Amino acid sequence: MIRTAIYGYGNLGRGVEYALSQTPDMELTAVFTRRDPASLEIHSDAPVYHIDRALSMTNDIDVMILCGGSATDLPEQTPAMAALFNVVDSFDTHAHIPQHFAAVNEAAQKSGKVAIISVGWDPGMFSVNRLYASSILPQGQFYTFWGKGVSQGHSDAIRRIPGVKDARQYTIPVESALEAVRSGSHPELTTRQKHTRECFVVAEEGADLAAIEKAIVTMPNYFDEYDTTVHFISEEELKRDHAGIPHGGFVIHTGKTGWNSEHNHVIEYSLKLDSNPEFTSSVLVAYARAAYRLQQEGQKGCKTVFDIAPAYLSPLPADELRAHLL
Amino acid sequence: MIRTAIYGYGNLGRGVEYALSQTPDMELTAVFTRRDPASLEIHSDAPVYHIDRALSMTNDIDVMILCGGSATDLPEQTPAMAALFNVVDSFDTHAHIPQHFAAVNEAAQKSGKVAIISVGWDPGMFSVNRLYASSILPQGQFYTFWGKGVSQGHSDAIRRIPGVKDARQYTIPVESALEAVRSGSHPELTTRQKHTRECFVVAEEGADLAAIEKAIVTMPNYFDEYDTTVHFISEEELKRDHAGIPHGGFVIHTGKTGWNSEHNHVIEYSLKLDSNPEFTSSVLVAYARAAYRLQQEGQKGCKTVFDIAPAYLSPLPADELRAHLL
Repeated sequence: MIRTAIYGYGNLGRGVEYALSQTPDMELTAVFTRRDPASLEIHSDAPVYHIDRALSMTNDIDVMILCGGSATDLPEQTPAMAALFNVVDSFDTHAHIPQHFAAVNEAAQKSGKVAIISVGWDPGMFSVNRLYASSILPQGQFYTFWGKGVSQGHSDAIRRIPGVKDARQYTIPVESALEAVRSGSHPELTTRQKHTRECFVVAEEGADLAAIEKAIVTMPNYFDEYDTTVHFISEEELKRDHAGIPHGGFVIHTGKTGWNSEHNHVIEYSLKLDSNPEFTSSVLVAYARAAYRLQQEGQKGCKTVFDIAPAYLSPLPADELRAHLL
Repeated sequence: MIRTAIYGYGNLGRGVEYALSQTPDMELTAVFTRRDPASLEIHSDAPVYHIDRALSMTNDIDVMILCGGSATDLPEQTPAMAALFNVVDSFDTHAHIPQHFAAVNEAAQKSGKVAIISVGWDPGMFSVNRLYASSILPQGQFYTFWGKGVSQGHSDAIRRIPGVKDARQYTIPVESALEAVRSGSHPELTTRQKHTRECFVVAEEGADLAAIEKAIVTMPNYFDEYDTTVHFISEEELKRDHAGIPHGGFVIHTGKTGWNSEHNHVIEYSLKLDSNPEFTSSVLVAYARAAYRLQQEGQKGCKTVFDIAPAYLSPLPADELRAHLL
């Protein structure tokens, strides 16, 4: 059994706990939290410890699964934990991946551990599909679309507007843009042409709805470059109809082959997820298995999904994979 | 430059030639044929040699790309060539992969070369997607659908019927079956429920059309378990409307997460290919790059797509991949 631990118990940590309950070869050794451990109710019977305790448990844990946020948690936690454990994280600030990689790699090279960063679906499974497709059809182009799904960052941005009590924002890919991409015409698409944004807003009593709507649709970076629809609904409606955290999206690559580039090909990968964090957690757990195995083979340092052969993700032995999945 | 050669110049070999013309880091050193080399017209300016000449060119070729057929060519050629070169092949008889792997592995372990077998889209990219999806969502199930596309084997079977001059057979996935699978209900689907078969047949003059149709739709293994439609058309129509070799298909995996398995997820990978052999060739070329690199790193023996980390397929360096594709 691969002994794993969860570092941070929010939506992602809970998702890892659920995902581990589906694995035949991995067990949950401990959950680490910054909160008072006694205050935490978890689903399984693993012990809950304060994060400080992790430092003394390097012999008890094969892989530490980091479940913090990308903004402030992971830039500190991943290098610190990679100095002690094999780790996986879901660092998803695309622009900062190179510097995160460098910091984690330095720690993991020194400790002789394996760290796999930016695991999830984007970055993660979407990245892998971009790489496969563009390697196979170099005379081509890929497009990434997100949604339909809840953007936590955009929902939070709406909640910060005066007069807003609660809000949920959906990112929605534009169907005609998807079709244009699938046609192989390699269209140039603006931000506005690729996605729309739909907002469900609970306003405080007596709030100026027109002012709220204007504040949303003109908000720089978040909404001004999109066609945005705003619906005002009651708190009950928000709870009833918008409680989930669904997401998903599409990576579509089209490319040409033939001596005169006369043949077109479409490679499409899509996800439709009822729970964004639980799917991300499931990817993290599969890559935690890989991190442990790679380190057992003598590897060390920071890796990404690009560096991991698919066979390392499965609990099945190589001959079974060849016989049944190839 | 990685020096590659093509072994066998049919549809697949031609496709490899085209794919190599799109790579910045690989060149075509030679084309080997069983035919009279002088009789072969190829598109690029590489020399054409008889296959016997390959034996004396082990220092001139980094990867031999094997383009023979799975029925009789590859079971002999791949082990023989793996004794001398790094090789890739597209062996696609699923049931015989374990024994092919064993034979090729023995040769490649002895020679210290890397052999990657069963490269293409199924087996190949479809296999990789089955593996990723089932590793991420173990409480789930995958389904593979093929088409719409031309099945060469079924077209040949029709051509062997007395009175048939030429024929083209399309395999078509059943839309309602795709939808049932995407719903996450894990339906049990019979062969008949998953695919239909559509045949375009050119009959000889005076042939008994009813007898031909009956011979097709009742043919054991090929058609009897399917709903099959037969259209009789003229030779001109066949040439005009059915000259291409399109194919494609879908790998759809649905699985559940959550403590009570309350969340459903759909992972879907699909291909829509204008030219089945040219796409397969493009995959072969990407994996030829991987075979060479792995052997340069000191690896040896037989591998499959499951054993190859995605980064090995791309001509781009790791830091660029992380910065732009992750």
